[in-house]
Amino acid sequence: MSGYQKVKIPCQDLTEWVNELFMAAGLDAADAALSTDNLVTADLRGVYSHGCMRVPIYVKRLRLNVTDPKAKPEVVRSVGATAVMQGNNAMGQVVGVHAMKLAIDKAKDYGVGFVSVGGSNHYGAAAHFSMMALPENMIGSTGTIGATLIMAPWGGIEPLLGNNPFSTAIPALHKDPVVLDMAQSVVARGKVVMAMKTKQPIPKSWALAADGTPTTDAEKAYWGTMRPVGDHKGYGLTLVTGLLSAMLSNSSFGRDVTDLYEEFTKAQNVGHYMQAVNIAAFIDPDEFKARVDEAIDLMHSSKKAAGVEEIFVPGELEARAERKQRAEGVEYPEAVMQELVALSAELGVKARF
Amino acid sequence: MSGYQKVKIPCQDLTEWVNELFMAAGLDAADAALSTDNLVTADLRGVYSHGCMRVPIYVKRLRLNVTDPKAKPEVVRSVGATAVMQGNNAMGQVVGVHAMKLAIDKAKDYGVGFVSVGGSNHYGAAAHFSMMALPENMIGSTGTIGATLIMAPWGGIEPLLGNNPFSTAIPALHKDPVVLDMAQSVVARGKVVMAMKTKQPIPKSWALAADGTPTTDAEKAYWGTMRPVGDHKGYGLTLVTGLLSAMLSNSSFGRDVTDLYEEFTKAQNVGHYMQAVNIAAFIDPDEFKARVDEAIDLMHSSKKAAGVEEIFVPGELEARAERKQRAEGVEYPEAVMQELVALSAELGVKARF
Repeated sequence: MSGYQKVKIPCQDLTEWVNELFMAAGLDAADAALSTDNLVTADLRGVYSHGCMRVPIYVKRLRLNVTDPKAKPEVVRSVGATAVMQGNNAMGQVVGVHAMKLAIDKAKDYGVGFVSVGGSNHYGAAAHFSMMALPENMIGSTGTIGATLIMAPWGGIEPLLGNNPFSTAIPALHKDPVVLDMAQSVVARGKVVMAMKTKQPIPKSWALAADGTPTTDAEKAYWGTMRPVGDHKGYGLTLVTGLLSAMLSNSSFGRDVTDLYEEFTKAQNVGHYMQAVNIAAFIDPDEFKARVDEAIDLMHSSKKAAGVEEIFVPGELEARAERKQRAEGVEYPEAVMQELVALSAELGVKARF
Repeated sequence: MSGYQKVKIPCQDLTEWVNELFMAAGLDAADAALSTDNLVTADLRGVYSHGCMRVPIYVKRLRLNVTDPKAKPEVVRSVGATAVMQGNNAMGQVVGVHAMKLAIDKAKDYGVGFVSVGGSNHYGAAAHFSMMALPENMIGSTGTIGATLIMAPWGGIEPLLGNNPFSTAIPALHKDPVVLDMAQSVVARGKVVMAMKTKQPIPKSWALAADGTPTTDAEKAYWGTMRPVGDHKGYGLTLVTGLLSAMLSNSSFGRDVTDLYEEFTKAQNVGHYMQAVNIAAFIDPDEFKARVDEAIDLMHSSKKAAGVEEIFVPGELEARAERKQRAEGVEYPEAVMQELVALSAELGVKARF
């Protein structure tokens, strides 16, 4: 298990390194910077599932031209406070940033902005985009369609739905912002994969076997479907998030969704939505944010269950991790860094680790 | 248990009856009609928890003037595609309809409309408002703050959060629309109350005892907190929905939330948000709706788990119930009708049952 040994790399080194990898894969400097920022920030926040461990798959798609490294997203329709952005098969991280910027600009003019995006790709952590609204004193929201079908409609046994995530970010005054970023399964599918590899049983609440019954057998779960939060409720959440992401922009839904890891001949045509709500249109932003601080204090003040040391609001642990890792370096399993080292050799990029 | 015997009442009779009750409680004809429509429609759709069984509590509040029967909501701020509505302590059902109408009007002009509402009251089923967007070829969304604190922040044991519900309604072409309307607990608290009354155990997934541990004892659950869907995820959902509902309109949050059933001296000052997204601003609505139909077909097409007869999308069962009950009459436990009969005697209204 030496590959799981933890190593630490300074944030600056990691950023420069990943940036060079993306440029070697064909992105220009601006798009490489946007993509790198997305992944490194996720790692800093401890959201490793959406961090630099994804560099190899993104680079693979770019080099195969199944994601177009030279493409630029464009606004194809703009009506009042809304717009449709066509990603033209550029990196999802790049498309997402442009789309959320547009939603923010719309919200400056109209109090709210809503941008529907098509022709995009897997965009990384949803919170990256919702949080763009925070320094503008806005509430940011986004959703996207998950790139792998892992959930069945409730009562069904076929994986026809992605684990379509959404995020909402709400600014606070002196506290860390409230940042909800969630997919609709009880746990991430990666936990089932890990349990299968380590031959551990899983809780019944995690997944359904291929026949639709709850299972504690990780391998059966792997060949089945992930269990949505609150059963039919999570099914509804992932269906609605998928429809909001795909239907306004005429992008992929259901079996048309192209798997990030399995399909290398067809563009993903992922859809997202981006929304910004300008607090100043409603109320004095400082008053708003002071009350959010109070709400956070209220959550923190709750009496705790036995064994619980601290109560958090969504996004708080991530903000804490970011502060620590930005100062001290980002922690990784060595195996993740070794993959980047191998990729660097392939691309003729100097490894920083 | 004769009170639980089912009776049937024609929709028209029920509507006229409830309307007269509300007028006797001080609402004018227009506001009585809006309030009645909200409750009767919920019953028709099988959402009895938000139907006419609530008439007695609403009438009680109106007669005590803790909800103001004569108040009219007003727009206190209007910026671009957004507005702030002050409910002035009118019936939540009345305020909600005006607010969603305004969001729809904004979406006609700007492609999207977002209205924040304060000074309102418990507004009934959230879907009532999101669904107002459907005939306009719009996607409707709303959220509100729950009027009873029943959930703890995750890791905590104090009920500091309501079961803050939200709803999104998405139009289809030939199919029933997709209408998600959910609160953030695994099950409604009413199920715990019912289990306590009938001395039945409850599944561990439903609730936490007062010490924060999962319990199968309904009475312990009653004195504890409801368990959010997906644990910390549902906590995040209810917190964010509460913040979105309360903070833009400076309305009640946390311990300031006035319990619908317990507090008769203080206005509720409930907040909601209402959003309409005009599909025509993005894409041809018929094209959009035809693809939603396809998505619904895809869900229906899934192979089923053993014992499952049919797969539904959110809102489908409710639409089916509405068609049936509109034609055949609304089914009720006799006890609910007997309460309305008693209330009618008190108010000098002719009972229709």
